[in-house]
Amino acid sequence: MSIDAPETTRVPVALGDRSYDILIGSGLIASAGATLAARFPGRAVAIVTDATVGDLHAPALEAGLTAAGLRHHRITVPAGEATKRFAMLEEVVDQVLAHRLERGDLVLALGGGVVGDLAGFAAAIVRRGMGFVQMPTSLLAQVDSSVGGKTGINSRHGKNLVGAFYQPGLVLADTDVLDTLSTREFRAGYAEVAKYGLIDDPGFFSWLEANWRGVFQGGKDRVHAIATSCRAKAAVVARDETETGDRALLNLGHTFGHALEAATRYDGTRLVHGEAVAIGMCQAFRFSAKLGLCSSDAAERMTAHLKTVGLPTELAHVPGGVGDVDGLMAAIGQDKKVARGKLTFILARGIGESFIAKDVDPAAVRAFLAEDLARG
Amino acid sequence: MSIDAPETTRVPVALGDRSYDILIGSGLIASAGATLAARFPGRAVAIVTDATVGDLHAPALEAGLTAAGLRHHRITVPAGEATKRFAMLEEVVDQVLAHRLERGDLVLALGGGVVGDLAGFAAAIVRRGMGFVQMPTSLLAQVDSSVGGKTGINSRHGKNLVGAFYQPGLVLADTDVLDTLSTREFRAGYAEVAKYGLIDDPGFFSWLEANWRGVFQGGKDRVHAIATSCRAKAAVVARDETETGDRALLNLGHTFGHALEAATRYDGTRLVHGEAVAIGMCQAFRFSAKLGLCSSDAAERMTAHLKTVGLPTELAHVPGGVGDVDGLMAAIGQDKKVARGKLTFILARGIGESFIAKDVDPAAVRAFLAEDLARG
Ligand SMILES: NC(=O)c1ccc[n+]([C@@H]2O[C@H](COP(=O)([O-])OP(=O)(O)OC[C@H]3O[C@@H](n4cnc5c(N)ncnc54)[C@H](O)[C@@H]3O)[C@@H](O)[C@H]2O)c1
Ligand SMILES: NC(=O)c1ccc[n+]([C@@H]2O[C@H](COP(=O)([O-])OP(=O)(O)OC[C@H]3O[C@@H](n4cnc5c(N)ncnc54)[C@H](O)[C@@H]3O)[C@@H](O)[C@H]2O)c1
Repeated sequence: MSIDAPETTRVPVALGDRSYDILIGSGLIASAGATLAARFPGRAVAIVTDATVGDLHAPALEAGLTAAGLRHHRITVPAGEATKRFAMLEEVVDQVLAHRLERGDLVLALGGGVVGDLAGFAAAIVRRGMGFVQMPTSLLAQVDSSVGGKTGINSRHGKNLVGAFYQPGLVLADTDVLDTLSTREFRAGYAEVAKYGLIDDPGFFSWLEANWRGVFQGGKDRVHAIATSCRAKAAVVARDETETGDRALLNLGHTFGHALEAATRYDGTRLVHGEAVAIGMCQAFRFSAKLGLCSSDAAERMTAHLKTVGLPTELAHVPGGVGDVDGLMAAIGQDKKVARGKLTFILARGIGESFIAKDVDPAAVRAFLAEDLARG
Repeated sequence: MSIDAPETTRVPVALGDRSYDILIGSGLIASAGATLAARFPGRAVAIVTDATVGDLHAPALEAGLTAAGLRHHRITVPAGEATKRFAMLEEVVDQVLAHRLERGDLVLALGGGVVGDLAGFAAAIVRRGMGFVQMPTSLLAQVDSSVGGKTGINSRHGKNLVGAFYQPGLVLADTDVLDTLSTREFRAGYAEVAKYGLIDDPGFFSWLEANWRGVFQGGKDRVHAIATSCRAKAAVVARDETETGDRALLNLGHTFGHALEAATRYDGTRLVHGEAVAIGMCQAFRFSAKLGLCSSDAAERMTAHLKTVGLPTELAHVPGGVGDVDGLMAAIGQDKKVARGKLTFILARGIGESFIAKDVDPAAVRAFLAEDLARG
């Protein structure tokens, strides 16, 4: 429930003839039928959602679609990361086709990043590309996964190894919907919000230090934080749609983070993605400080803020531990950001001064990890 | 075995930053290692092939890759249309990842249209897009499926309903390799060659009437026919990459043809795709003549040529029959070229004068089919 009713904020994503809008604000699920009928008249809609989100939020969406005269069908997948696999992709594709949707009709993802990644990939491949709309319902999905067109599933060889770049025609981020999200999931998404400050917007990071409570509470601070995050991601994506260049900056905290997720076997009860990113960003700053690239003050300041909002910031915060240096190094070596044997990291010269460091010496990483594990 | 050794013919496909070459000629499999090493230095290669083609032609390719110092792995799928399904896609994707290929490495399709469509789709989605090379080994694949970037698999709801537009970086069409193809499969591919004449190149159609024996035999007539076909398809694709406009011309004979394939339950012992297209093109001309759009002379002339090379041209030529009008109409209605309930056909005003007819009256199609079935 929002404490005030901010206007809807529009963030355009500039990608030539694939440009689209992100609309952010209160009450957008209820008005989605009218919005879609205006932008995509006469299209049928396949709503892909997970069981949790579907129960909570699909009825309001469906009522609006019905009122606007749009034919719709709900396709429900199980909640959780395990849903991002081939069998579920086939299931969603099959149901979209069974409902006789045509190329111009819409696949609509109503859910967190799991649903968005899966449904977006299905939209990309059914009839070699259908219409696609994102209605992200987790904070992580609103500020990160729904923006930029990366879609996909996991493979037994690693996360997100199979997929497509496929841009939606519209993103509707209803900020009220986050009120039903667990605090833990909200915090995990907040790690990605803070990331945009840490990458290249020190002013936004300072604003978050002062206003984070408002973001958690809802209302216009939340809309501001989400819109600022989307604007930051959209700018990077517009510069580098298919991640051949500086889109990699968005991976701040992710190389270490992925290694932690692998070390905990993607067990969300121990560590969810945003928590891994939180620890990973703290590690990236500590590693940068150790390399003499940034001050330890900067590392301490960003760590303190993440700790204040309740995020884990240390390896020791992971229940059950993360194993030893060898295991972490092996996971880092398998990370897909490895180009021809060299290690690529996102490092920082300070808060809001991140950069892509190619050719990082594996021995330096190993030494840092040994020290970081020894912190306790 | 070619009877002479023509130079390699290069057909460029102009698609902006996704432009690529089709090289057509004798002996290209043996020299492929050197060609790839020059164009894609240092890339690892996953060769996707079917059991039949792999046994016949993979060893020569592999010897060349080894000699050129390129790491390679062979991934073998069963021969036949049933291979274009989700389970095989997952299998190919999984093996490409298991061999630790990176985003810049190559998936190489060595086979007919089945292998090309499946491997191309896998290349499109592994790591959201790897390098991709086509080495088509059937005539159909050399003149049609390897050109234009359509990749995909079948669904229980219909053929080619799941896939991606994904352009290769290079197409190598070794014309000698067609000598191991069965005459029936060669003829089926020839239907697509003739199609390019019928669409918009009456001079090429006349040339085929005079020189078809040379095309079947091998040597420079074969190279000429394949290069002319590729040039024709490349021009259409360059104008309309994702089939929103006149790329649909390439579907001449395909709406009727798909209905025949459906009526024979895609049983290749009864009817292979090119045979269905041959009959479908004759039907499109007969239908055009009946509608007063073209002369019956034109319909008879094109039918006579296809009959001369040994292709079926009548519904009565299909072993086991094709059922009744209702069944064919239902199949036509399910064809994916139906836009919002209207029927689209490719019709002709004469040989080399095909056009896209939208809003064709289903009653006229029904009347024509009843008459065509009654021919005997
Ligand atoms: N495509 C990209 O660019 C990109 C970027 C980052 C992450 N991702 C992917 O996103 C996924 C993680 O996203 P996520 O954290 O949203 O996970 P998720 O989709 O699993 O959602 C987390 C949990 O919250 C529940 N949930 C979502 N919205 C809710 C709501 N409003 N109320 C109550 N419960 C709700 C879900 O049912 C789920 O149990 C990962 O698979 C990751 O790989 C993709
Ligand atoms: N992507 C496109 O634009 C496009 C266009 C037209 C057709 N297609 C697809 O192409 C497929 C049909 O292609 P196809 O006719 O090549 O089928 P195919 O790949 O099944 O090949 C036909 C048969 O010939 C064998 N074969 C192939 N090359 C051979 C050789 N040199 N020597 C001996 N045997 C050989 C194969 O093993 C197979 O048994 C269909 O799935 C169709 O949907 C795609």
